[in-house]
Amino acid sequence: LDEFSLIKQFFSAPPDTSSTGNGVLVGIGDDAAVIHSEAGKDLLITTDTLISGTHFPEQTSAVAVGHKALAVNLSDIAAMGGQPRWFTLALSLPSADADWLGKFSDGLLSLARQHAVTLVGGDTTRGPLSITISVIGTVSAGEAVKRSGAQPGDAIFVTGSPGMAALALAELEGKIKLTDTEKSDFRRKLEFPRPRLLESQFLRPLVSSMIDISDGLAADLGHILAASDCAAIIEQDSFSDCLRSSTIPRGSIVNAALYGGDDYELLFTVPEKHLSTLERGWQKEFTTLTRIGEVMEGGGIKMTDTSGIDMNITPHGYNHFNDQR
Amino acid sequence: LDEFSLIKQFFSAPPDTSSTGNGVLVGIGDDAAVIHSEAGKDLLITTDTLISGTHFPEQTSAVAVGHKALAVNLSDIAAMGGQPRWFTLALSLPSADADWLGKFSDGLLSLARQHAVTLVGGDTTRGPLSITISVIGTVSAGEAVKRSGAQPGDAIFVTGSPGMAALALAELEGKIKLTDTEKSDFRRKLEFPRPRLLESQFLRPLVSSMIDISDGLAADLGHILAASDCAAIIEQDSFSDCLRSSTIPRGSIVNAALYGGDDYELLFTVPEKHLSTLERGWQKEFTTLTRIGEVMEGGGIKMTDTSGIDMNITPHGYNHFNDQR
Repeated sequence: LDEFSLIKQFFSAPPDTSSTGNGVLVGIGDDAAVIHSEAGKDLLITTDTLISGTHFPEQTSAVAVGHKALAVNLSDIAAMGGQPRWFTLALSLPSADADWLGKFSDGLLSLARQHAVTLVGGDTTRGPLSITISVIGTVSAGEAVKRSGAQPGDAIFVTGSPGMAALALAELEGKIKLTDTEKSDFRRKLEFPRPRLLESQFLRPLVSSMIDISDGLAADLGHILAASDCAAIIEQDSFSDCLRSSTIPRGSIVNAALYGGDDYELLFTVPEKHLSTLERGWQKEFTTLTRIGEVMEGGGIKMTDTSGIDMNITPHGYNHFNDQR
Repeated sequence: LDEFSLIKQFFSAPPDTSSTGNGVLVGIGDDAAVIHSEAGKDLLITTDTLISGTHFPEQTSAVAVGHKALAVNLSDIAAMGGQPRWFTLALSLPSADADWLGKFSDGLLSLARQHAVTLVGGDTTRGPLSITISVIGTVSAGEAVKRSGAQPGDAIFVTGSPGMAALALAELEGKIKLTDTEKSDFRRKLEFPRPRLLESQFLRPLVSSMIDISDGLAADLGHILAASDCAAIIEQDSFSDCLRSSTIPRGSIVNAALYGGDDYELLFTVPEKHLSTLERGWQKEFTTLTRIGEVMEGGGIKMTDTSGIDMNITPHGYNHFNDQR
């Protein structure tokens, strides 16, 4: 396993790790990292594993793998309204390929630098390609945004264009055709998702519940509704219009957004009293913001379209229940 | 992947997770756990991966795998003088075998309960058996014990009987024979290492440096000496006498202790002014304590035996340099 000392050179002294920065008292190289804890903050802890062939296609570039492995975890911190601070990396690799490792660490550490999150520990083992990252973040005490706060009457919003990642994957698998521009745009969304941390900081005081879209809009909205004991009605046109394509039929766009997942956009609910602050305050450097529906009493998700057709949505498909009208 | 909902039943509501206990504000089930951070404490963060066939023999029982995956991480927190508080579990499994999972979670969660450490997040994926655990601990601000504090003149101590784990592994691999009692004792040490957390709390104010033995006494003492810029002299009889066997030749015991690893005992250095407090205060419920040598000026490790033979020790073997005298 001596060749694995190669791995250390890529991670033992990341450029953003200094002995005093970001509260790090002892970084990589002792039995555990030591972090100065801050008064008035709660800690956020999350972990996610990406396995080659399951969570990303095997041909995915090393730089994209490095980026995405951290991005999906940062997205969880964004969904809680927090700021990511420190992370650990457990990397399993079939062999120590210096070229692959250099690109992987570029993708990983450039995203880390961008969000000022510091690598504080890790473990490398030989095995099939798999990456487990744990991120620790902070949020002002008592201010973490949970899934459980949605109330009937709250408006439902989503950032960005849900569905692009699923369409990129469908194209990679030869199931659909895209124009060259779409292919490059959608694939960038699949491979280099941007955790919505900037937006999350603005949203934290305004939202009643929040989640990041990893399983698809339907399933993740379902998680909010289950935790909040509510129902929702969403408008098909609102979110299908987020994503315009000259080649993809509208039905495929709707399906990709509802059931595709892997978008890492924020889905959240906003009480009426905060709507004007949200819409007036939404900033130019943020991604797009779309109001897609409303929280209701009851359970389940109903979707309407412009022709007045209502459908019941489930995480695994949808059923017309009113298509005779 | 629907059968993986099976997995959730074993971990979603561990008995030691309550909404108010141990500072946990939000446990498993949201995008991230939320933890109440305490004033006057530093955080400790560590992560370790165990892969089947690499870090434990494939035939290892599920309860032992669960125990050991957490124990090796708790041992890192012990080596820093801290208390483990929360952990995340990333579990990769070839299939969702309810019997295996039940035993794995028994081993994992009973050790967690014993040390009041709370499972706050996780991720389960399909793949070859591999377990990555991250533990977050706390220690009084500024009190974490590093590897770098050893000074010439400090005494070197070790807990327990280093070498047992390596001998158990050698027996499993058919390389040596043990009596039935030894087999069972040594194998328990290999499969159910006890993190020395109790001892660590007593040791924290007394020691100048500390590490847990995972790579073997020679390599791990080498880590302390490198970080502290010192040398050491150790007495072969002191640590080889820790481990008595009716079947194993003394040379094999010495080799197992020096180079075997996987012991998870504490190795530490103590300034002279604290020696009497250490030796008078060592408690009955603690494991055994053995003084094995002394920190010196310079670099490297020298070993002496009763016949007066001195050897230079390296992490990968040792050389007689003085056997003509």
